[in-house]
Amino acid sequence: MTTRAILTVNSGSSSLKLGLFTEELETLAMCHVDRIGRREAAMKIRDAAGRNLPMPDHAPTAFRTNGAALRTALEVFQTDFPGLEVIAVGHRVVHGGVNHAEPLRLTEATMKELARLAPFAPLHQPHNLAGVRAAVDTFPGVPNIACFDTAFHREHPFVNDTYALPRRYYEKGVRRYGFHGLSYDYITGELARTEPDLHEGRVVVAHLGSGASMCGMKGGHPIDTTMGFSALDGLPMGTRTGQIDPGVLLYLMDTDGLDSHGLSELLYKESGLQGLSGVSNDMRTLESSDDPHAQEAIDYFCFRIRRELGGITAALGGIDGLIFCGGIGENSANVRAQVCEGMEWLGITLDAEKNVTHAREISTGKTRVLVIPTNEEIVIARAAAQVLKTL
Amino acid sequence: MTTRAILTVNSGSSSLKLGLFTEELETLAMCHVDRIGRREAAMKIRDAAGRNLPMPDHAPTAFRTNGAALRTALEVFQTDFPGLEVIAVGHRVVHGGVNHAEPLRLTEATMKELARLAPFAPLHQPHNLAGVRAAVDTFPGVPNIACFDTAFHREHPFVNDTYALPRRYYEKGVRRYGFHGLSYDYITGELARTEPDLHEGRVVVAHLGSGASMCGMKGGHPIDTTMGFSALDGLPMGTRTGQIDPGVLLYLMDTDGLDSHGLSELLYKESGLQGLSGVSNDMRTLESSDDPHAQEAIDYFCFRIRRELGGITAALGGIDGLIFCGGIGENSANVRAQVCEGMEWLGITLDAEKNVTHAREISTGKTRVLVIPTNEEIVIARAAAQVLKTL
Repeated sequence: MTTRAILTVNSGSSSLKLGLFTEELETLAMCHVDRIGRREAAMKIRDAAGRNLPMPDHAPTAFRTNGAALRTALEVFQTDFPGLEVIAVGHRVVHGGVNHAEPLRLTEATMKELARLAPFAPLHQPHNLAGVRAAVDTFPGVPNIACFDTAFHREHPFVNDTYALPRRYYEKGVRRYGFHGLSYDYITGELARTEPDLHEGRVVVAHLGSGASMCGMKGGHPIDTTMGFSALDGLPMGTRTGQIDPGVLLYLMDTDGLDSHGLSELLYKESGLQGLSGVSNDMRTLESSDDPHAQEAIDYFCFRIRRELGGITAALGGIDGLIFCGGIGENSANVRAQVCEGMEWLGITLDAEKNVTHAREISTGKTRVLVIPTNEEIVIARAAAQVLKTL
Repeated sequence: MTTRAILTVNSGSSSLKLGLFTEELETLAMCHVDRIGRREAAMKIRDAAGRNLPMPDHAPTAFRTNGAALRTALEVFQTDFPGLEVIAVGHRVVHGGVNHAEPLRLTEATMKELARLAPFAPLHQPHNLAGVRAAVDTFPGVPNIACFDTAFHREHPFVNDTYALPRRYYEKGVRRYGFHGLSYDYITGELARTEPDLHEGRVVVAHLGSGASMCGMKGGHPIDTTMGFSALDGLPMGTRTGQIDPGVLLYLMDTDGLDSHGLSELLYKESGLQGLSGVSNDMRTLESSDDPHAQEAIDYFCFRIRRELGGITAALGGIDGLIFCGGIGENSANVRAQVCEGMEWLGITLDAEKNVTHAREISTGKTRVLVIPTNEEIVIARAAAQVLKTL
């Protein structure tokens, strides 16, 4: 007996997320490894029902590389699914540049092309591609497919793809790429399937997790998003600033002598909810803290979401629906309530009880508010299955 | 016969704007000097009726410093207003830091304090203070009063005064100061005087000139503005980028080797309408150009205004009025029309004919749209007169 499966790989700087799916795109198992390269590295593998799968006796508890974590996870998968045969690997790759609005079959040539985009996403792209390399080595001859976080947004109108820099910067790729495209792709697909009327309208999706962004769509087509050239702009995040005046960077260079590395560390890793609260980068911890700075960080997070909601609605010319997704969007009734408070001018009124119980539809006003759990892995698996069909 | 007068001074990097007022705040004359330090420097002085006043025969046509320009202008004033006695000088000073929400009598001590804020506005503050120094030297014993562009906004709620940086940066002054406060002060005063109901409501003011920003007020109190720590953020301007992803700066540092000076030159002086169009930093020139890049720059400018209008409206919880002011806001029917197009969802509908004829009220919808010429000089003169009364 063999189990033919599609594997999805989301490889970060110190984390690895794997999804195992049947050819028919049923979930078999999910694997999450955190803190790779550190002693406290931890791997969790769950089957489709959410049960933890046991680790093999000899399996290391720490992993030095994403490749080592991948090989151990594969052993667990093989124990649980005898005769497992991985027939395609789909990868989340943060940056597809200006050319890729669709998933891409990976070859030595296209991998080189994607490596050249590393300066656009220096904290993410190299780690994504390290995951690709590990899969290529582990599954020789198996097709690898890249799915880009930027791909969904490539349709943006020019006014929302450029900055007001001299033209040559646009030509060399300084554009408003936008990210979290796999999540937006999933949500718009769910809307098309379950809420076709709303899908045809003007919808704002708030993907709120440790990374956070929002996207405005009309008839499923992306018009506007809060992230731009990098995954740093827009909403504040767990440890990232979100929107900040470029003058602050000039000031920190001049007065604190920060260089690009120092600024990058500050803006990506020490800011956001963590920096503002001084307590935690985790919304659950902030919500249960009685430190007033924790509440201020939550207030700031919600204020920026509200402000961007207004901005994106202007880009859409009005709003028919607001969708919450992502770890915070799906689980924090508190954040959803604070974002929607006093938004009657946009036709938004929450049903407090439905919000607290995390109902799918939580609004009573003419602008519908929904909570839809996102699923980036299935979008990658679908893309891989689609590419397999063309081979 | 003597003419007791209040002088206002707006001293920039290569320009000087002077206003001469009676004690009763009637305009006597205005003076504008451009391109100071260059051969093409040009001084224009007009009386209250808008007539050009003749230059003295021996007056230089070029000025090496703002002080030299000030002294020549004073000669012209003295010729036209015999027995002229300047009894107070009011200064536009861009930055008052966190402590000054009101005009400030200038002394050696307060001037030193303001000089210490230069790192917050390195391209403006030193030139403003050079104008103060020139006036102190030219009018010994006369009170000098500073009026700050930041002062109007000091009431912002904390969520809209901070960035999501570690707390220590807020403490050391990295805040959302906002600018163009003298203009917003004037407009809110005009609203209180002529439209008391609207003044009590939720109003967005778009100050659109070669510098451009927007401000949201509730009952005349500032809630939100598009500029933040520096005068670089928010709307695109003649040569400034406005909003830009901080990741772009990191990228330009890493790939083009730009330092803070190089970035500052790029973002302040080579970007905005100029950079995006490649044609001009002047809206009139862009509007009469048939270069498609000129139209794209206008489209970008209007798109960003529309997006910020939505964002500020969210911060206000709705909108009752939109006010246009500044050179572009007062004179470009085209920009006003493009900003308001498809804004029915905000209750905004323009009266096309009234817009083209620059009527005071140009809307037909429930959200009122007005064009109110701003007057920063009179705000400075009023503050100086007010301080005089307390002496």
